[in-house]
Amino acid sequence: MPDVDSPEALAASRAEYEERVRTSGRELPGPFMTTSSLPVERLYSPVDIPDHSYSRDLGNPGEYPFTRGIHPTGYRGKPWTIRMFAGFGSAEETNERYRYLLDHGETGLSVAFDMPTLMGYDADDEWAAGEFGHCGVGISSLADMELLFDGIALDQITTSMTINSPAPVIWAMYIATAEKAGVPRSELGGTLQNDILKEYIAQNEFVFPPEPSMRLVVDTIEFASEEMPKWNSISVSGYHIREAGSTAAQELAFTLRDGIEYVQWCVDRGLDVDAIAPRISFFFNVHNDFFEEIAKLRAARRIWARVMTERFGAKNERSLWMRFHAQTAGCSLTKQQPEVNIVRSTVQSLAAALGGTQSLHTNSLDEALALPSDDAARLALRTQQVLLHESGTTNTVDPLGGSYFVEALTDEMERECLRYFDKIDDLGGVISALESGFFHHEIAEAAWRYQQEVEARDRIIVGVNEYLMDDETEVPTIRINEESFDRHMARLNRVRAERDQQQVADTLLALERACADPHSNVMPSLLDAVNAYATLGEIMGVMRRVFGEYQQTVAF
Amino acid sequence: MPDVDSPEALAASRAEYEERVRTSGRELPGPFMTTSSLPVERLYSPVDIPDHSYSRDLGNPGEYPFTRGIHPTGYRGKPWTIRMFAGFGSAEETNERYRYLLDHGETGLSVAFDMPTLMGYDADDEWAAGEFGHCGVGISSLADMELLFDGIALDQITTSMTINSPAPVIWAMYIATAEKAGVPRSELGGTLQNDILKEYIAQNEFVFPPEPSMRLVVDTIEFASEEMPKWNSISVSGYHIREAGSTAAQELAFTLRDGIEYVQWCVDRGLDVDAIAPRISFFFNVHNDFFEEIAKLRAARRIWARVMTERFGAKNERSLWMRFHAQTAGCSLTKQQPEVNIVRSTVQSLAAALGGTQSLHTNSLDEALALPSDDAARLALRTQQVLLHESGTTNTVDPLGGSYFVEALTDEMERECLRYFDKIDDLGGVISALESGFFHHEIAEAAWRYQQEVEARDRIIVGVNEYLMDDETEVPTIRINEESFDRHMARLNRVRAERDQQQVADTLLALERACADPHSNVMPSLLDAVNAYATLGEIMGVMRRVFGEYQQTVAF
Repeated sequence: MPDVDSPEALAASRAEYEERVRTSGRELPGPFMTTSSLPVERLYSPVDIPDHSYSRDLGNPGEYPFTRGIHPTGYRGKPWTIRMFAGFGSAEETNERYRYLLDHGETGLSVAFDMPTLMGYDADDEWAAGEFGHCGVGISSLADMELLFDGIALDQITTSMTINSPAPVIWAMYIATAEKAGVPRSELGGTLQNDILKEYIAQNEFVFPPEPSMRLVVDTIEFASEEMPKWNSISVSGYHIREAGSTAAQELAFTLRDGIEYVQWCVDRGLDVDAIAPRISFFFNVHNDFFEEIAKLRAARRIWARVMTERFGAKNERSLWMRFHAQTAGCSLTKQQPEVNIVRSTVQSLAAALGGTQSLHTNSLDEALALPSDDAARLALRTQQVLLHESGTTNTVDPLGGSYFVEALTDEMERECLRYFDKIDDLGGVISALESGFFHHEIAEAAWRYQQEVEARDRIIVGVNEYLMDDETEVPTIRINEESFDRHMARLNRVRAERDQQQVADTLLALERACADPHSNVMPSLLDAVNAYATLGEIMGVMRRVFGEYQQTVAF
Repeated sequence: MPDVDSPEALAASRAEYEERVRTSGRELPGPFMTTSSLPVERLYSPVDIPDHSYSRDLGNPGEYPFTRGIHPTGYRGKPWTIRMFAGFGSAEETNERYRYLLDHGETGLSVAFDMPTLMGYDADDEWAAGEFGHCGVGISSLADMELLFDGIALDQITTSMTINSPAPVIWAMYIATAEKAGVPRSELGGTLQNDILKEYIAQNEFVFPPEPSMRLVVDTIEFASEEMPKWNSISVSGYHIREAGSTAAQELAFTLRDGIEYVQWCVDRGLDVDAIAPRISFFFNVHNDFFEEIAKLRAARRIWARVMTERFGAKNERSLWMRFHAQTAGCSLTKQQPEVNIVRSTVQSLAAALGGTQSLHTNSLDEALALPSDDAARLALRTQQVLLHESGTTNTVDPLGGSYFVEALTDEMERECLRYFDKIDDLGGVISALESGFFHHEIAEAAWRYQQEVEARDRIIVGVNEYLMDDETEVPTIRINEESFDRHMARLNRVRAERDQQQVADTLLALERACADPHSNVMPSLLDAVNAYATLGEIMGVMRRVFGEYQQTVAF
C-alpha cells in the first residue's frame, strides 16, 4: 500500500533528520561498512528505495521474480534440510558419523572427500602420500562407496557430494551403490557439486583443462535430465570463491555468471533449457555480515529468475528457481578462542535461514582447528534445530521483506552483480575471463583490502586483533588413525585382486572411446567401469590421457 | 515513498497468492505462533500495514514517536553498554569477577545481590541462614560496598544495581562509597532497579506494603532529580514478569503501565514531569522469538513517547525516551545440553541489538545450572563483542524498519498493550489491579498455556521434548565456599564493634522520624545512617517498624 506520507513530506523529513545529525548527533569515526567493505548509510527509510515496486521487485513468495522465496509457503511448507558436511578417514568411520548425525536429527547427508579423491587418485597413489582421510573420506572404488552408505536408505534421504573434477566418476559410484541396494536411479535425490568453473576461479582442485571439463559437466546435466529427475546435477558454488577472499557481491556475481555459462553450454549442445535448468542448484557462503548475506541471497533469486527469462527465454517456472544450499563461513572462524565460533555460526545460520536457504551446513566450533569432534558436530546440528524450532523465524515467509535497509541492500547487490556480468561478457565469457586472470585479480584485491582493514583495526575480529587472551582454550580434536588407512588399503587390494580383470579392461577401453568422442555421453561407460570395480585412479587415468591435465598459467 | 503499485493491484496480487497457496501450496500442520502463542500469518506484505504512515508510526531515529530509536545515530553514536549481571559470595570475590569482566572488555557493571540483601537482612540474621552469597553478593554494610568497588573508578563506569525493597539503602551505600573515594554524587552514572511494583506482580521480593513502597520510590526519584542528574533512579522491569511466564505483550503492557504508575505518583507529589521522567529507565527480557522481541522493543518506544505526551503532557524530549537495559531470557535456557544455550543467547542478544537496547546482559550457558563460571561468563561477553564488531548489525539504525512483518507485529504489540492499559485503568490502577489478583491471573494463564503447548509438542524445545540425549554434557560449575561467609562475618562483626555506636543510634532515630513523616524524603537520613556504618538489617529494621511488612493476600 502506498505510505500515507507524500514523497515530498518524506524527503523533507529526511533532510531535517540529516540536519539534526549534523548539528547534534554524535557519531563515532567508523568506518561503517559491511564485511565486504561496502559502505553502509546511517539510515534507510522510504527515501532510499524511491521507485520500489512490490510486484516488480519482490513479488509474493513463489511468484516472479522470487525475491521473497521460490515456494509460496516457505519453511511452513518444508523446513530447510539440515545437511552437515562430513567425512574423514575410511568409509567405515564416516558411515558411523553419518549414523550419529542422523540419530541426532540431521535430515540430509553431505559427503566430504579427501584430497586424493578430490584429485582423482587412489589412496596408494604416489600423489596421495600422507593425505588419506584428512579433509574427508577416502574413496578409491565402488567397494568404499557401498560401505559409506551401508545401512542408510538412499531412497529416504538426499545426499550431497562435494566433488568436482572426478564428479561423474563418484556420481556413477553412488548410482551403482544405490542400484545394488535396489533403489533405482530415478528415485535418487541429491546434489553433485560438479562445479568446475569455481575450481579454476578459486579452489584450484581441477584436473582437466576447462573445455573437456565443461563437456563432462554438460554430460552429467544431460544424463540427469534424462534419467534422474530428482537429482541436482550441479551445485554452482560461491562458497569457495568467498572463502578465497571475495566480497559478497563478487561471490554472487561470479557464481551466477558461472551458472549462466553452464546453461549456455547446455543450450549450445542443443539441450532444452527448460529440461535442464530445473535441476541446476547453487551453493552460497554465509559470512558474518547479517544483512549483507540476507540481501545477497534475496538478490540471487531475483537475478536468476530474470536471467533465465530474459537471457534464455525459459518458460518452465522451475527453470527460474534459484535453489541453494548454504554453509556458514569457514574463513570467518578463528583458531583463537574457538568457542566464540559458536556465536559466529549462529548469527550466520540465522542469516541463511532468513535468506531462504533450502539446506544448511553449520560449521563446528573446531572447524578452524581440526576435524569436528562428535560433540562439536552435534552442537552445530543443534544450532539449526534451535533456529528451526525456537527462534520463531520460520513462521512466516521472508520476514525481512519490506525493510528499507534490506531492500536497498538487495537492490545494491543486484546492481553490483549486473555490473560484473557486463564485465565478464565483455571479456568473452567465464573461460576467457578466467584465462585473462580477471577473477583472481578481483578476489585478490578484495582479500587484500580486508586484510588491510584488519591490520589497521578498521575492522575488529574478536580474539584476533582485539579481546585477546593469553591462555587459549583447548578443544578436543580428532585425528585420523593409521588403522583407518590400513583398512582402506586392505579393501582396495582385495578389490583389485578379486574383480574380473577382463571386464575392467573392457569397460575402461569403452570409457576411453566415449571420452574421445565429443558426441558421446561418458556416463553410461562410467557406470559400467565403476560396476566392474575399476578404481577411481584407473578411471581418472583414462580420462587424463584423453583430456590432458591443466596447469594454471595465470600470473597475478 | 509510495509504492508504485496501487492499493488495488496489491490487494489483487495478494488474493492471487492466497488462491495459489490454497490450490497448490503445501503446508505443514503448524501451529505457527510466536513464543507468546500469538498466531503468525504465512505472509506479510504491504497489504498488512494498510494505513502505515512513516511520519506518524515510525519517524526517523531520534524523532517522535521514536519507534526507530531515541538517538539519531543509534549504535554509530554509542554502542550498547556490555553490562554483565554478576555477583556471588563475598564482596572480595565479586570484586574479582568485576575486574575479570572489565579486563575482558565489559563496559558497565551490574550487581547481583544475594537473597538476604534483597530482603534487607544482615548475613547473620536468622532469616538469612544458608542463603549467603548464593544468587549474588552479600552486602550488610558500607564496608562491604567499599570492598565491592575497590579499585574501580566509579566516575569512569556506570553501575546497575538489582535491588528493590532495600533500594534506597543500597543506593545510599553506593553514593557513600563513591564520595569516600572522592567522586561526587552528581558525577555518578548508573541505574537502581527500584521497581517495587513488579515484585508484587511477579518476583515476590517485597518487604513493605505497596503504599509506603511507592513513597520510597518517589523519594529516590525526587532525590535523583535534584542531586544526581546522571542517575537512572528506577529501572521499570518487565524481565521478571516475563520470567514468571507472561507473554511478550503482557511484559510490555505491565511494565509500561508500572512506569505510568510511578510517573503518576511523582506528579501527585507535585514533581515536574519533565524533571523526573528523563531518568526513568526500563528493563526488558529478550526471549527466543526473534521478531516478537524486536517488535516488542520498538513498540515500547512508541507507546512510551505517546503516553508521556498525551497522558502527562511532557514537553522535554528526554521525557519521551524509552531507554532500556535488556537481558536474554533465563527461563529459555535448559539444564539439558547446556551448551545449546549459547545458541539461544546469541539469537536473543541479536534481537536485543536490533531492538535498539541501551545495554545488555547475555546469560551464560550454565545459568540454568549454577553460578556462571569465569569461562562461561567470558563467552557470554564475547557473544556481545561478536555482535558489536563482526555481525555488521550496528552500522545502520533500526535495520528492520519497514519490514512488513516487523511493522505489522509492532502495531499488534502496541494494540495489545493499549488493551491492557484500558483494563488496568478500569481496575483503578496498578495497585488495585494487583490486589484484585489481575496480574497473577493473567501471567499464570499464559504460563499454563505455554506448558500445555510444550506437553502437546505443539512447541518443540531442543533437548527438552525433542532431540534428547542419554548422556548429558557436564559443565564445570562454581560453588560458594564457607571461607567467603566467614570473611564476610568477620568484617560485619568488626564494623559493629568499631563504629561510633551513638552516631548509629542518632542516625537511625532520625531515619525513623523521616520515614514516619510523609512530607520528608528519606534519602538524606539514609545517607547519614550508612555513613555511620549502620547495617542493612538495622536500617531495614527501622523501616519495617514504621512501614510494616506486607503479606500477599491474593488467592489464585
